[in-house]
Amino acid sequence: MKDKFQNSVGIVQTKIFRIIEPDKPLKLQCGKSLAPIDVAYETYGKLNEAGDNAILICHALSGNAHVAGYNNPDETKAGWWDAMVGPGKPIDTNKYFVICSNILGGCSGTTGPSEINPATGGPYGIDFPMITIADMVKVQKLLLDKLGIGQLLMVIGGSMGGMQVLEWATAYPNFVRSVIVVASTTRLSPQSVAFDAVGRNAILADSNFYDGQYQDKEGPARGLAIARMIGHITYLSEEGMRNKFGRELKKADDYRYDFDSEFSVETYLDYQGASFVERFDANSYLYISKAMDYFDLAKQHGSLQQAFEPSKCRFLIVSFSSDWLFTPAQSEEIVNTLAGIDKDVSYCNIGSSYGHDAFLLEPEKLGLLIRSFIEATYYQLKNPGKYIFKDFHCKHTGKLAGQTRRARVDYELIESLIESHSKVLDVGAGDGELLAGLLEDKNVTGKGIELDEELAIHCIRRGLSMIHLDVERGLSQYKDDSFDYAVLSQTLQTINDPEKVFTELLRIAKRVIVSFPNFAHWRCRLQLLLRGRAPVTRQLPFQWNKSPNIHCLSLKDFDRFCKELDVKIEKRIPLSKSSYFAIRFAPNMFAEQAVYVTSKGMSR
Amino acid sequence: MKDKFQNSVGIVQTKIFRIIEPDKPLKLQCGKSLAPIDVAYETYGKLNEAGDNAILICHALSGNAHVAGYNNPDETKAGWWDAMVGPGKPIDTNKYFVICSNILGGCSGTTGPSEINPATGGPYGIDFPMITIADMVKVQKLLLDKLGIGQLLMVIGGSMGGMQVLEWATAYPNFVRSVIVVASTTRLSPQSVAFDAVGRNAILADSNFYDGQYQDKEGPARGLAIARMIGHITYLSEEGMRNKFGRELKKADDYRYDFDSEFSVETYLDYQGASFVERFDANSYLYISKAMDYFDLAKQHGSLQQAFEPSKCRFLIVSFSSDWLFTPAQSEEIVNTLAGIDKDVSYCNIGSSYGHDAFLLEPEKLGLLIRSFIEATYYQLKNPGKYIFKDFHCKHTGKLAGQTRRARVDYELIESLIESHSKVLDVGAGDGELLAGLLEDKNVTGKGIELDEELAIHCIRRGLSMIHLDVERGLSQYKDDSFDYAVLSQTLQTINDPEKVFTELLRIAKRVIVSFPNFAHWRCRLQLLLRGRAPVTRQLPFQWNKSPNIHCLSLKDFDRFCKELDVKIEKRIPLSKSSYFAIRFAPNMFAEQAVYVTSKGMSR
Repeated sequence: MKDKFQNSVGIVQTKIFRIIEPDKPLKLQCGKSLAPIDVAYETYGKLNEAGDNAILICHALSGNAHVAGYNNPDETKAGWWDAMVGPGKPIDTNKYFVICSNILGGCSGTTGPSEINPATGGPYGIDFPMITIADMVKVQKLLLDKLGIGQLLMVIGGSMGGMQVLEWATAYPNFVRSVIVVASTTRLSPQSVAFDAVGRNAILADSNFYDGQYQDKEGPARGLAIARMIGHITYLSEEGMRNKFGRELKKADDYRYDFDSEFSVETYLDYQGASFVERFDANSYLYISKAMDYFDLAKQHGSLQQAFEPSKCRFLIVSFSSDWLFTPAQSEEIVNTLAGIDKDVSYCNIGSSYGHDAFLLEPEKLGLLIRSFIEATYYQLKNPGKYIFKDFHCKHTGKLAGQTRRARVDYELIESLIESHSKVLDVGAGDGELLAGLLEDKNVTGKGIELDEELAIHCIRRGLSMIHLDVERGLSQYKDDSFDYAVLSQTLQTINDPEKVFTELLRIAKRVIVSFPNFAHWRCRLQLLLRGRAPVTRQLPFQWNKSPNIHCLSLKDFDRFCKELDVKIEKRIPLSKSSYFAIRFAPNMFAEQAVYVTSKGMSR
Repeated sequence: MKDKFQNSVGIVQTKIFRIIEPDKPLKLQCGKSLAPIDVAYETYGKLNEAGDNAILICHALSGNAHVAGYNNPDETKAGWWDAMVGPGKPIDTNKYFVICSNILGGCSGTTGPSEINPATGGPYGIDFPMITIADMVKVQKLLLDKLGIGQLLMVIGGSMGGMQVLEWATAYPNFVRSVIVVASTTRLSPQSVAFDAVGRNAILADSNFYDGQYQDKEGPARGLAIARMIGHITYLSEEGMRNKFGRELKKADDYRYDFDSEFSVETYLDYQGASFVERFDANSYLYISKAMDYFDLAKQHGSLQQAFEPSKCRFLIVSFSSDWLFTPAQSEEIVNTLAGIDKDVSYCNIGSSYGHDAFLLEPEKLGLLIRSFIEATYYQLKNPGKYIFKDFHCKHTGKLAGQTRRARVDYELIESLIESHSKVLDVGAGDGELLAGLLEDKNVTGKGIELDEELAIHCIRRGLSMIHLDVERGLSQYKDDSFDYAVLSQTLQTINDPEKVFTELLRIAKRVIVSFPNFAHWRCRLQLLLRGRAPVTRQLPFQWNKSPNIHCLSLKDFDRFCKELDVKIEKRIPLSKSSYFAIRFAPNMFAEQAVYVTSKGMSR
């Protein structure tokens, strides 16, 4: 008991605010009006004098306003995201003012379908008006107005909370400085809609539902439990379930040959169903799941591009590799849309076997991302035009020991080739060293793409705009000439289809800077000629069977490649491995690597 | 109406056979006994005089004995697998005698829980004894005995039907010549068990269930419909659902803001639920889904290896890439187990977006596999020691135009290096040309592994034992020294981790024969030396950016590789591209390719 308050916000009160009075109803998206509306909320930390340190947390389907700490000293379980929110935690209540409110339609203090309908004096039941994610956010905005919060440093939420975050970013573009969307989507897939529909069916089919007027009766407990069981299957991944339960039997070694639950996974679902019924209301479940089904930013705004066009905030999108309810592909769609309309977006797909539940079960990696994204945003707010990443420099390159560090010599040269204040895309950005240098020294607007998860996280922690994505899966989201420069440094020879990637880069950038090791360096030639072996050199240091370089090319090969693709070579700088100076004599023989500046040819 | 009988078995009768008389009850796996037992079945085609052309089809959860044709002239829909069964169809009723019976516990004529319990005079309800897949198969066996069938040419089934097939292969090893297991598993994953449990919960929770005694009442229609809806979500893939429904609304352009079904995917599920209730019995659903949950060959026999040890049949295992209910990984587990204990197994993971439903929706590829696997099995039965594949030769290599054809010269040499009657594994078997030659000319026992789906299908159609699998995912299923020879022909340089694969091959085979193109051929050397370009030669014909060869190696590189791995080089045969004769002078300079025979070194 002594320890539970350590790093905790401690004892907190859920407060209720009447944001809509009975005589001034709120117009909802469905066309109907609702009044009065009370909102339950909690806050942690203090709003600073500038009023610029407020962070709003949006909760998921079954969550509530109680994010962190304890509502009373005897409570054994802390709030639902206590791992993330508290003094010194990723969302640091020593620094930031944190707010979370129960959603409209919920059953934890905010007005919802099981509360009293003033028109009848009884519970609303299914006479409650249909609500949407937009309505939920509108109610949150009214609460913030009443609390005197003029702008949010950040809105963050996972799952359905992430839908609210997306609504915030699109509906209130001037109110929000940054957003973090975790394991969410701009619209449910038909598969998720189908699961929701079956869950609602189970509630509506329960003979104890009584059109939602069950408050003085037993209530549709079995239907609600079934809905929750379906939910819990979708929150775990197949692999996660195998690891957690396998085919283990709960009480016996052998089958009992009856219809009672006997597999561990069955008793787990029974428990989840039963405990949910204790704390949640079936009517709320119906309304909230329907609000999720209805959420569709593209439908609402004409297209996703149009939805996000007014947004001015920094975006961090996070997905989990084994999440099949809110899939990485859905997050990528958001990321690609934002990148395509030149928004400031970072993305990480965290490798995890926990499925959708990873949003609550991967506090370490997620916490790192959240903490540093908030810090970087706040730093940029306080120091316009500067970047926080300097502080991270040594510490984190040190941490990444074992990762292949690139030769700095081509970085220095590439930096010298790029004009100040230009727009740059670094493809295969690695640890972000080049991009960080360009931002510091050249005041560029710089973004990056990196395939490796650890390196992408590292870059995001440095405050860089970094998208964790395989460049070979396409760069089609970017418009023509989106960038002044695209940089492909020491990456071309590791790509399966160099032609496809290079051609795309030439489309989206005015100039493409490419560097690669020269396979026709004299050491390579002599090794093959005289020793009859696949060359192993300073610049190509791998034995044939260990090499990550899946293509071999020389300067001449690249020259011909450019000619075939009708690409103009603006500069061609043969280099040694360690010297900044160009090799002038017989470069295809004496250069260990080369840097090219290329652009579209005449016929393009 | 005229056309519906074309290529159809026409009008067929479902017959009923009493296989267990009231006074001689059948002992079930659960320990209880059951009598009487009637079995509903259909047959198509004729049993030949030798009695060796009988094929048993096992149906899935909601199937029945009516596989093909029409039970009466007015029936609009043919039997559930009419696409596969009929004159000239993949399971050709002109050649084979086909039987299918409704499973024990079913509701289409075979004794099940909604029939009369002789002990009470009323329906069994949940007093029906618990049944298992083994019980279902035991009943099928009794039926075949009564029909005078002494051996089965083949048992085939998909989904739960595949479980019955696996039970046949393990419980009656002398009765079954071959089996085809489509989209099935030796045990459900905990995720599938969870879905089943929720479905049963929905039925058991329905207030109209009355402990299964609902026959003269309305019955648990809503519970059964919910169970079926859950099932249908799992039968489709996420991608399939997107393609089929997207987020389309059924009746309006905009949301109606009520709880009626409005997304197309919802009305689809409503339809599936409602139509299932019309034709299926809730009690049967409970019993059959429980039988699926219980099925676990490893638990039943101690291990999967022990389960399959007595099997003597040829196996064809088929999965579908997007099936997440009976996953390709589950099929691979079967395949790997069988391969590991030296059974005759072929495998294909068919690329499809239809999910588990592909078992009914991919008749073309599946039909090809089924037809040729039956034909090859029957041919081998009639012509012991011979193979059908000769007939396929020209036709199918012609069909596969565009696939990279391998140089025949190393094939001829490799064939000459392999002793007659030895056991051979061809890794990266391509179109099966080498393996077919070895089987014909050297009487080897030969098996293959091939990554490409089309080539694997081609090989299976030729009658070869071929496993469609990525060799880099592991060869760990094979025991030490399982083969006399493993052949890795022109594949080493395309593998990400050649060391891992080569080491595994040396473990599982006494000798490993490797062929690869020589990167140190004089043309390569001179091209790099004099022209300064990545070599493009007869044997290495690809431009740097198009090459499938992700590693470059010379004879010397491979020599050193063997030395480092303590591998003994028994033979080292440098070759030109087109000549069978070895290069004797300066082979690392003049050989375009090389064939090595290697074996474990002394210290192993």
